[in-house]
Amino acid sequence: MILHLAAFRWKDDVTDDDVAALTAALSEMAVGIPEIRSYTAGANLHLRPAGADYGVAAVLDDAAGLDAYLDHPAHLAVYEKHLGRMIAERSAVQLPIEEGSFR
Amino acid sequence: MILHLAAFRWKDDVTDDDVAALTAALSEMAVGIPEIRSYTAGANLHLRPAGADYGVAAVLDDAAGLDAYLDHPAHLAVYEKHLGRMIAERSAVQLPIEEGSFR
Repeated sequence: MILHLAAFRWKDDVTDDDVAALTAALSEMAVGIPEIRSYTAGANLHLRPAGADYGVAAVLDDAAGLDAYLDHPAHLAVYEKHLGRMIAERSAVQLPIEEGSFR
Repeated sequence: MILHLAAFRWKDDVTDDDVAALTAALSEMAVGIPEIRSYTAGANLHLRPAGADYGVAAVLDDAAGLDAYLDHPAHLAVYEKHLGRMIAERSAVQLPIEEGSFR
């Protein structure tokens, strides 16, 4: 299985309302994409100094599942409406995980 | 519970051997820190374009568990011996997750 991680730094003009609308849109999107096994997205809790502004983590079965998610019309729509104009910097990684090992 | 994510871009002189040694050291470290519920660290699979070089994901009970991990002598030792000299850029996020919801 694949753990997909993304961290974002926002442009200076991004508001709390923008972030709340993004999180709502991503949460709704995730429910409608069956290839997504687990999903979480939200503003950084900033429990430590020097972090990014926002994070997403998703569990997929495989690379095809990741493509199905990231290329899904609902994901592209969230990017178009919210994410695209918010991002100053994005950092993403895919890691292999064993089923049930990461929880 | 807390999902802690970190993505790294390496300096140009970092070798595959450096990365393998780091992954071995982090894996050994994670086993010895009881506050870490789940842990994975490794080179980006690069299933999509434009990703970072390396990622870490950890599940902790709470902010105190995150501090216990990141301030643990074994973590500081891995930073000192491996990670510190490898990092060009680091992007980290903490997200709240419900127990059992992310797997």
